[in-house]
Amino acid sequence: MWRLFQYPLCPFSRKVRFACAVKAVPVELVLEKPWERRDEFAALNPAGQTPVMQKGEITLIDSAAICDYFEETVDRVPLLGSGPEDRAEARRLIAWFDQKFYAEVTAPLLSERMYKRLYSKQAPDAGAVRTASRNAEGHLDYLDFLLDRRRWLSGPAFGLADIAAAAQISVADYLGGIDWDGHEPARIWYSALKSRPTFRPLLAERMEGLPPPSHYDKLDF
Amino acid sequence: MWRLFQYPLCPFSRKVRFACAVKAVPVELVLEKPWERRDEFAALNPAGQTPVMQKGEITLIDSAAICDYFEETVDRVPLLGSGPEDRAEARRLIAWFDQKFYAEVTAPLLSERMYKRLYSKQAPDAGAVRTASRNAEGHLDYLDFLLDRRRWLSGPAFGLADIAAAAQISVADYLGGIDWDGHEPARIWYSALKSRPTFRPLLAERMEGLPPPSHYDKLDF
Ligand SMILES: N[C@@H](CCC(=O)N[C@@H](CS)C(=O)NCC(=O)O)C(=O)O
Ligand SMILES: N[C@@H](CCC(=O)N[C@@H](CS)C(=O)NCC(=O)O)C(=O)O
Repeated sequence: MWRLFQYPLCPFSRKVRFACAVKAVPVELVLEKPWERRDEFAALNPAGQTPVMQKGEITLIDSAAICDYFEETVDRVPLLGSGPEDRAEARRLIAWFDQKFYAEVTAPLLSERMYKRLYSKQAPDAGAVRTASRNAEGHLDYLDFLLDRRRWLSGPAFGLADIAAAAQISVADYLGGIDWDGHEPARIWYSALKSRPTFRPLLAERMEGLPPPSHYDKLDF
Repeated sequence: MWRLFQYPLCPFSRKVRFACAVKAVPVELVLEKPWERRDEFAALNPAGQTPVMQKGEITLIDSAAICDYFEETVDRVPLLGSGPEDRAEARRLIAWFDQKFYAEVTAPLLSERMYKRLYSKQAPDAGAVRTASRNAEGHLDYLDFLLDRRRWLSGPAFGLADIAAAAQISVADYLGGIDWDGHEPARIWYSALKSRPTFRPLLAERMEGLPPPSHYDKLDF
């Protein structure tokens, strides 16, 4: 079985877990906190980052490379769209959430509300949290814009763009950075994802010492 | 013909240009300085970033999505390797250079030595430049390590990992951030790339008001 090195609030690991669940690829979870900089983990991934997938001699690194690998090797439920233009649009949005949403929203929230609380025992910087929440607002506006025109984020079919977005948003939501008010299209889309048996297990997990807001795993939020 | 919105020192645009040259896809260059935030450009790419490729109704955004698009649509010179494991290794290294090298080396050098010099008319922060150069040193060590074991960065064949690396490194080198001393394997690899007719035109270009160091476009450096 594939082993996935991850921790519960790593958004890139969530993306891999959600994609593997949809493709029915069984995955055994191994808890890895990258900030502890374990030597064995650095030997596995010189970038020192989660997620890493491993089975026998094969080590897969970087969530985009991992998702592409399973897209190429598991025919069941294609997740990137049919033509090259559809796939380019899916990849544009995956990069948007992996890089832009992560840098502007998820990474500062993880740093201020997870890392400082659990590890460096500092108070969060209120300004940084406010900026991240305001950035999240802009991203939800963009989701609304897309979902007014499309059934799913990158087109008519559910796929990796939805998975990448749900992965980042669910972590930001866990950390209290998402205000759903006034974002009906995004809320309806996320509610549909929350009810999927392939996504629900992720929402049931907790980072010890850091409870999510009460709406976090509710279908009606 | 495809039109590429780019500026001479954008490493992601260099990656796309190099890949298109190798695949013999003709590209017309359109100068776009993303920091000027032109409204028409924001309408083309809501992320406001270069590179963007456009032809007729098709708009391609994000250098990885663009390279994947041409990998899928142009059979000539496959650039990602043959099996899924080879492709995963190539993608790992592409992400390494696009994200890690860019964040640790190219982005701070662009900010300190291009943007401040040409646009905000400030002196560069010497500490930030020193840190970027020290980070570059670590990346060259990693190149040496890989090239002691492999003909090209991701395996026996030249491909997108080499292109992504050359794109970032050439910008860092233009900005004086690369010290080749003591990095023979990396130097030999880069020298072989510099002599390719598909890469040379990039090295002949200049950002006005910002000359590169004299070794920059020499084959013997
Ligand atoms: N491009 C990588 C990004 C992975 C990443 O940033 N992981 C974070 C955890 S959410 C990490 O390990 N950070 C520790 C570090 O960068 O040192 C991917 O998509 O897998
Ligand atoms: N993931 C994107 C990154 C592109 C990128 O960061 N472009 C820079 C220029 S080198 C940019 O446009 N920055 C302006 C901004 O982010 O506002 C890609 O691979 O194309």
